[in-house]
Amino acid sequence: MVQIPKPPAPESLAPRSVPTSADVARLAGVSRATVSYVLNNTSAVRISEPTRRRVHQAARELGYVPHAAARSLRAGHSRTVLMPAPSFPVGPLYSRFIGELQWALGRLDYTVVQYGTVGRHDDEAARCWAELRPVAVLVPGSGLGPRGVDVLKRSGARAVVTLGPEAVEGAHALLMDHETVGHAAARHLYDRGRRRIGVVVPAENGLELFSAPRLTGARRAVRDTDATVTELPLAYEERGAARLAARWGSLGLDAVFAYNDEYAMLLMRALQDEGLGIPGDAAVIGADDLMLGRLLRPRLSTVHLEMPSGRDLAALVDRAVHDPGAAPERHTVLGAAVVHRESS
Amino acid sequence: MVQIPKPPAPESLAPRSVPTSADVARLAGVSRATVSYVLNNTSAVRISEPTRRRVHQAARELGYVPHAAARSLRAGHSRTVLMPAPSFPVGPLYSRFIGELQWALGRLDYTVVQYGTVGRHDDEAARCWAELRPVAVLVPGSGLGPRGVDVLKRSGARAVVTLGPEAVEGAHALLMDHETVGHAAARHLYDRGRRRIGVVVPAENGLELFSAPRLTGARRAVRDTDATVTELPLAYEERGAARLAARWGSLGLDAVFAYNDEYAMLLMRALQDEGLGIPGDAAVIGADDLMLGRLLRPRLSTVHLEMPSGRDLAALVDRAVHDPGAAPERHTVLGAAVVHRESS
Repeated sequence: MVQIPKPPAPESLAPRSVPTSADVARLAGVSRATVSYVLNNTSAVRISEPTRRRVHQAARELGYVPHAAARSLRAGHSRTVLMPAPSFPVGPLYSRFIGELQWALGRLDYTVVQYGTVGRHDDEAARCWAELRPVAVLVPGSGLGPRGVDVLKRSGARAVVTLGPEAVEGAHALLMDHETVGHAAARHLYDRGRRRIGVVVPAENGLELFSAPRLTGARRAVRDTDATVTELPLAYEERGAARLAARWGSLGLDAVFAYNDEYAMLLMRALQDEGLGIPGDAAVIGADDLMLGRLLRPRLSTVHLEMPSGRDLAALVDRAVHDPGAAPERHTVLGAAVVHRESS
Repeated sequence: MVQIPKPPAPESLAPRSVPTSADVARLAGVSRATVSYVLNNTSAVRISEPTRRRVHQAARELGYVPHAAARSLRAGHSRTVLMPAPSFPVGPLYSRFIGELQWALGRLDYTVVQYGTVGRHDDEAARCWAELRPVAVLVPGSGLGPRGVDVLKRSGARAVVTLGPEAVEGAHALLMDHETVGHAAARHLYDRGRRRIGVVVPAENGLELFSAPRLTGARRAVRDTDATVTELPLAYEERGAARLAARWGSLGLDAVFAYNDEYAMLLMRALQDEGLGIPGDAAVIGADDLMLGRLLRPRLSTVHLEMPSGRDLAALVDRAVHDPGAAPERHTVLGAAVVHRESS
């Protein structure tokens, strides 16, 4: 292991000879105000092309870049959109959505910053985020309450948008309704003639936010029918799946909604290793419509999720920043459609 | 689609009635300096417990949080470690590494900020990053050159650390040697008696950073032997894999290193659908040691990658921040070990 030396006195931490806008002004032979106008692209003041060029060249020569923090202090606000890094394991679907969102916000001239606040919750997390003085905060998952929203707004955030299964007072909400995912899956199994439906609930931390509403949705789908829903806790590892498969017969189930495609692959393999036929002995459906489902034999049925468009969400953030007094918007953004293949 | 209203005049963008440290000082009946000492936990000045409590209570009541940017302007440096979001598709292995790194840097009191600079390269990207005045910058992948390092250092970054296949002048480097991955895979196939080895090269953008050295390593492994290496371009989609499998016989190959486990699953399925036996007609090995490889039949052989420890990397960052004049460190941090299962 590497040795961490004792930190030196704080004075020595200050960067040495960092070029300032005054240096640029001196080299270009203009005022500091002119440097600021040119480098911040202010349109309010007309500056001749040769002067502009001189300032840019001096900045390049000295290696000067404007200081975002100083600029936002002067302006009284920043263009920073803060996104706390999600506390749950992120799948490829979500990654793609985040990438699209960052691109769309970048086009509207916002700077998206992702920030991990490991192990902090609600108020405490909100205070950490507030220290960065973001103009907007986009919170995926849960973990932010009305008090956290208040802290953020009081520190100058003009928009707080949550992205998850529940709305929070004072914040805009993109509601991801995971009940519809479970509902669609169980309904499909019911329509295929199955009556004793298992629903996998991952044992991993952070996923109950998605698994609980999926289970609720599945129960709702077969309410007032002759079908039953059985909760099946399962960790993402082979041994637990083998144990579950070994007692499959005693459970009396004829179908399973396996939470998502990855858990479906895990459980389907364990069932097949036990000699059970898919879908004969057990119909299996996953969710997320990942590539791997198409590569399984039998091919995996799945629930395809339609994520919100990053462009729409970026537009909502921008709208909210320009009108912070507007009533919170609520949008339900998660679509769910069954893709029927061979496993169900 | 949502309508974006015309932005209002800039004045109205300033947050209204954001509480300041002066408000806190007034409510607590102390000086602004005292507020600053208490809320920034300065140990240089002794302040009585009752005063401390009064300041904290006033801050809570008003919803005041310190301004990180103002603090870093005063201090002349920040505790922000900037990590540009990687431009390549991120797998579960890499995600776990990043999570561990953020946790370790958090324990050393750094704030890790991830920042996407979509479509910008080298100098231009470095200037964007420099605007945030990070105390350290951690750059995964490539895309930063010596000039970018210079821009960052001139704007006050005390440490620049790259994380990828190549070292950059002026920056510390954690070298991820992907040649060893390809070398280990091809060596394994050779040792299993295979002589005509295909190496999958993904067609997806951003992956050549990893695939090119893996191919080079495979070639190196069989240099001066009677074995050959054939490059197999492949996109991550079923049709291309089926086409490659259909002409397998004409390629005259008896083994394949499939870039990683996901491409291995794709190609193995296509070969099996063509009626080819694994490993009889084609030995297959992946990389990354993902769970899915263990769920395939036959079970997938793979190259297990040992990522650097997030804790070691955090310690390197901290060391570099405290001694920015030290010569750049170079560490090779990627271990590769073959996990032999049934497919090879």
